Amino acid sequence: MRSRRNPRGEDAPQVAANGLLDRRALLGRGALIAGAMTAGAAGSLTGAAAEPLSNGPWSLAPGVPVPPYGQPSKYEAKVVRTLSNPKLESRTSGARTPHHLLNGTITPNGLHFVVARGGETNVDPETHRFVIHGLVKQPMVWTVDALHRYPMVSRITFLECGGNSAPLYSKEPIQASVQALHGLSSCAEWTGVLLSTLLDEVGVDPKAKWMIAESADLPTMNRSIPVAKAWDDAMIALYQNGEALNPSNGYPMRLLLPGYEGNMNVKWLRRIKLVESPVMAINESKQYTILLASGKAWQFYYPQEVKSFITRPSPGVNLQGPGFYEITGIAYSGNGRISKVEISADGGKSWARAALNEPVLSKAFTRFRLPWNWDGRPVVLQSRATDEAGNVQPTREALIADRGPPRSTPNVLAFPMEHFNAITSWGVDAKGEVSHVYA
Amino acid sequence: MRSRRNPRGEDAPQVAANGLLDRRALLGRGALIAGAMTAGAAGSLTGAAAEPLSNGPWSLAPGVPVPPYGQPSKYEAKVVRTLSNPKLESRTSGARTPHHLLNGTITPNGLHFVVARGGETNVDPETHRFVIHGLVKQPMVWTVDALHRYPMVSRITFLECGGNSAPLYSKEPIQASVQALHGLSSCAEWTGVLLSTLLDEVGVDPKAKWMIAESADLPTMNRSIPVAKAWDDAMIALYQNGEALNPSNGYPMRLLLPGYEGNMNVKWLRRIKLVESPVMAINESKQYTILLASGKAWQFYYPQEVKSFITRPSPGVNLQGPGFYEITGIAYSGNGRISKVEISADGGKSWARAALNEPVLSKAFTRFRLPWNWDGRPVVLQSRATDEAGNVQPTREALIADRGPPRSTPNVLAFPMEHFNAITSWGVDAKGEVSHVYA
Repeated sequence: MRSRRNPRGEDAPQVAANGLLDRRALLGRGALIAGAMTAGAAGSLTGAAAEPLSNGPWSLAPGVPVPPYGQPSKYEAKVVRTLSNPKLESRTSGARTPHHLLNGTITPNGLHFVVARGGETNVDPETHRFVIHGLVKQPMVWTVDALHRYPMVSRITFLECGGNSAPLYSKEPIQASVQALHGLSSCAEWTGVLLSTLLDEVGVDPKAKWMIAESADLPTMNRSIPVAKAWDDAMIALYQNGEALNPSNGYPMRLLLPGYEGNMNVKWLRRIKLVESPVMAINESKQYTILLASGKAWQFYYPQEVKSFITRPSPGVNLQGPGFYEITGIAYSGNGRISKVEISADGGKSWARAALNEPVLSKAFTRFRLPWNWDGRPVVLQSRATDEAGNVQPTREALIADRGPPRSTPNVLAFPMEHFNAITSWGVDAKGEVSHVYA
Repeated sequence: MRSRRNPRGEDAPQVAANGLLDRRALLGRGALIAGAMTAGAAGSLTGAAAEPLSNGPWSLAPGVPVPPYGQPSKYEAKVVRTLSNPKLESRTSGARTPHHLLNGTITPNGLHFVVARGGETNVDPETHRFVIHGLVKQPMVWTVDALHRYPMVSRITFLECGGNSAPLYSKEPIQASVQALHGLSSCAEWTGVLLSTLLDEVGVDPKAKWMIAESADLPTMNRSIPVAKAWDDAMIALYQNGEALNPSNGYPMRLLLPGYEGNMNVKWLRRIKLVESPVMAINESKQYTILLASGKAWQFYYPQEVKSFITRPSPGVNLQGPGFYEITGIAYSGNGRISKVEISADGGKSWARAALNEPVLSKAFTRFRLPWNWDGRPVVLQSRATDEAGNVQPTREALIADRGPPRSTPNVLAFPMEHFNAITSWGVDAKGEVSHVYA
């Protein structure tokens, strides 16, 4: 796998138009990259005498005390979530993950996306109670401490707001970063008690086909979930990336429904009621219902469909002249594992298969990467993901043909841009600047 | 796998003494757990009428604005690293991970352990440079931006200080939490450029057998590393759990040598020099050298040996009366994957195999779990890990017999407690209080 077998690199095979290289191609010693570096990469000193190297001021004095809880470097102050409601006016608050400034598959807790209808809610774990009741043999109440006695599981899984990527529904491509376009999805390791364990405790009446999950915060949001999801992989999550949940993400406990629409993963969870039929809450009867082009309403759909987007390069993360780059991004599917990600540098005419970073986990972010030799001419970059169920990420044209163009009707609160998983296109101009285009 | 086939739970098989249950045993409806709950779990309301449930005050008023960078709940203020040098006196600073308060396998960046000889150092990524030179065809210098053009990889891997668990070397068991005893190990997803990619760029002279890695902070720490590790899996890490490295963990770049002694994973990396023989830096010729019982010095050893410890229950995380509990903890090995973790509740006489949380990754934390029905009598809990290379975690007696008892000699700075990977024992008394014991 190492390029020492390919010492000059020029023979790295191009597998699709405009410089896309084989994902197994590695770099030639001093060829691809060094070429890139000397061709104008900002700040590159390649080839300069490497020694002596002047010391930075940080080598001349001690640092500062290590803090009890570490924070990012002061030089990373721009790596934050963008907020839709920073003054907590009486509307929903959104906070978007800066995918273009991150790498890997884990989203740190401080940067996990948030959609909160009542702001960040601080629930006291000592007095909080969680109830399961309704069509059960024995209703039960748990404290946070009591839940800690149960068997737990940990799993890495993504969460995505049903409204993520909605800006791609606009008639003209919105000029914004991948954070603005796709920032309502994130991925973390969640640890908690399987809901099936607790349902075994209370004893579910066979008449119960649905469960209503309810939050403890001001909006008291509720959603209906088929009981089958509890017997599959639903979790009462207590930990996020090792530590207790972040307060914006439901501390001290949330419902986690791997792969399902974010809104259903009820935060600050206080109650699950077993029932015969859905509650028809506003979030399921209106907001998260799609009016299709056919005129029918698409309701009670759950998994977030297969999606991918390129995070580097992307708007705001421009190229520094021709030469070698890695194209990288994120793919995921609420239906299982990602089986394939393809990259195009000619707007979808030819495709090269990207490398998937191992391990590829079900319903988790999968980082894809592809080596690319940019010749300096304008190109259009796209990524297209396929999941193990065989679902292929659609083109924007195909998805809009299916859903119908954006519209608002006076009697329907439907937002027809929910679950928008179409291919994203980045235009790269001759200066290396990246913009959002429709292609 | 669900307990509905085992509706009363009493037939869950005990597989080792003192209530250790089969790892595949799941809980009986209202049996094991409900029994535990009504037998005295603090705050349990099991069996109480579950509705109506009074609202908490957080349901009566909006929360607070979602912050640009989220922080843990104010109710988790005790979940912090313990600091060995909070005033930055002129000695090493340590910060230990609170394993007993965490769960899962990822350590959040704010809680990752730190050993820093010059404190937390804030390096400016705009002016920082990284050099590879020495026995190479072409010495080269990289900026942080230039490294971002290279192909990257992400991997989840642990880091551990060679001195972690040293308190177990004391003659009497030190009464302290798992944080104090084992808190100098952590696990994160690291993303960066493989060192092999950069060595291909500079062209390594075949005479180079070693490389000297050097930090940019005040102590200018350096270590010698066999070049073979670079061709294996060494990485120049730029991201930690998705975001840029924490400043205490080497921002903007560190050397990552998966599985190798923490001290070798040089932070604030400024230079790698290819050489013929080791530099004999103080950290390799004296501090991280073990004087064995045989009188010989054990030098230039690298992988952290197979280890495990139980995090729950553990000192400070006591039991709340007899009944069901999950025993859980962490296992890892610098030599590859964990293949097996066994639990004993009778001080090592009988063992039950624990469940390993998937995915089990090479050189990464593996979370193990075992159901346990505690009858209220005193017990001694132990965990014993085996890795895929066949290494078995030794007893404390066996390890001390090999290394020799703790000693200090006037002419040798050796700390013979480095790489202490023996089995840890927790004593549980009749009140459920957990203490550190030798057994």
